[in-house]
Amino acid sequence: MTSPDRFGLDDAGSDNDRVGRVTLVGAGPGGADLITIRGAAALATADVVVYDRLADPELLELAPAGAERIAVGKAKGEGVDQDDINALLVDMALRGHHVVRLKGGDPFVFGRGSEERAAVEAAGIRCEVVPGVSASLAAPALAGIPLTHRGMSASFTVLSGHRIPDADHEWGALARSGSTLVVMMGATTAGQVATRLMAEGRPADEPVAAIHRAGTPEMDVATMRLDHLAEYGCPFPAPTVLVIGNVAAFAHPTLPTAAMSERPTARSVGSSQAELPVG
Amino acid sequence: MTSPDRFGLDDAGSDNDRVGRVTLVGAGPGGADLITIRGAAALATADVVVYDRLADPELLELAPAGAERIAVGKAKGEGVDQDDINALLVDMALRGHHVVRLKGGDPFVFGRGSEERAAVEAAGIRCEVVPGVSASLAAPALAGIPLTHRGMSASFTVLSGHRIPDADHEWGALARSGSTLVVMMGATTAGQVATRLMAEGRPADEPVAAIHRAGTPEMDVATMRLDHLAEYGCPFPAPTVLVIGNVAAFAHPTLPTAAMSERPTARSVGSSQAELPVG
Repeated sequence: MTSPDRFGLDDAGSDNDRVGRVTLVGAGPGGADLITIRGAAALATADVVVYDRLADPELLELAPAGAERIAVGKAKGEGVDQDDINALLVDMALRGHHVVRLKGGDPFVFGRGSEERAAVEAAGIRCEVVPGVSASLAAPALAGIPLTHRGMSASFTVLSGHRIPDADHEWGALARSGSTLVVMMGATTAGQVATRLMAEGRPADEPVAAIHRAGTPEMDVATMRLDHLAEYGCPFPAPTVLVIGNVAAFAHPTLPTAAMSERPTARSVGSSQAELPVG
Repeated sequence: MTSPDRFGLDDAGSDNDRVGRVTLVGAGPGGADLITIRGAAALATADVVVYDRLADPELLELAPAGAERIAVGKAKGEGVDQDDINALLVDMALRGHHVVRLKGGDPFVFGRGSEERAAVEAAGIRCEVVPGVSASLAAPALAGIPLTHRGMSASFTVLSGHRIPDADHEWGALARSGSTLVVMMGATTAGQVATRLMAEGRPADEPVAAIHRAGTPEMDVATMRLDHLAEYGCPFPAPTVLVIGNVAAFAHPTLPTAAMSERPTARSVGSSQAELPVG
């Protein structure tokens, strides 16, 4: 067992006999009340909150007034290295603290939560995970889009646009899977993704929805065709979730976009339904 | 009793006219405290709660004591027809009630929430969606499985095993997509799914995790190889989430299973990591 004393950093008022722990909490997609009750309860007992740039600032108010709040959000290469975040979680827990690691959306969806958990557990510290509402599912839901729909799409695939085009996707298989595609962190690479999918056979007129700041009062939704996405790129900056597939035509757009010449219409693919309840 | 002007609606009618509405609330994966704060707040103002069989019974305690509670859960062909559920929601809202439709997981992930919303809106009734934590993401997270992992899987695909084998999946593309596969409602069809994926090229020794009753004190996790899943089927009854892919080797199993001759080992696929923090 590692002794907290080896750091020589204990606060005068802290209890050295306390066993520290880490709770990885999903903050939800945006909108402080989209955190779970379990996640809010973890925050309420936090001694230290380590949070990302994307977490809703109001969430920090759920922690006790005396809790330490440490921002480690990363943006465009700035922020704290992952190794340093891991070390911070371990260090704070070894001091006997309850450390809440607050991550946007769900901690395990492109969140590197698994790396943090592995580091914490490797140090012999208890680590609990509280799942969160992932923007990958919540953004489409809030925009009125069912990711699956009978006769239209029987599955959905979530991928990150963050490392496009060098990410190791099997584009041909993804394009032909029939799956609704949900692209996270793809605002800047949306044009490349669309071009690649069309090259692999997705139709130029396939509906696309872009959902910006889902779950917040500033939420915006735009719809367009896949070829328009390829030509004009994403109409919103980050954070934006893209939905590519016929179900995107169900979206309730909040504004017209320059890239949208006309509203996509829902097409029934192999369905007995002649008309779909679009809009 | 809630006032219509609270919803920003025109209250031009008589004082006795109440404007009903419907809120589709995701109940989360299991474990009453995995509902969102927004979902709990909706329940707290419900006049009527229409709930599924899978919703945690404790969630019903979040509604006012005087609220009407109507079970419409479907199991093995029993339960209420979808058309009748839609009609019930419309009827109750037209009577001026705030109707909370409580659905397991997220309302829009294989939940037919979009059909219910369309029916409600077609009747001119306001319908709000409160996303929930989907078991498709939460079950793997609670079992210690990251659905994506650098160098191992860059995306994940969620499908339902409910209508296998007649569901319209592009099995070849799904098998070759490199995506981690998450199969919902697949406890009874797991063997067929595994056989089909192996026939399309997924390796016989690919790791599989089965997660039963995620988020509850009765949660169970088992791991096995894909060929063992094909031969023996799912080790748990419903509700069970299956994860098929190399990331499944990260699972923390809670019990050994007859179908598992040995613990799968995490294999690094195209990664710079020689060893992965399994266990």
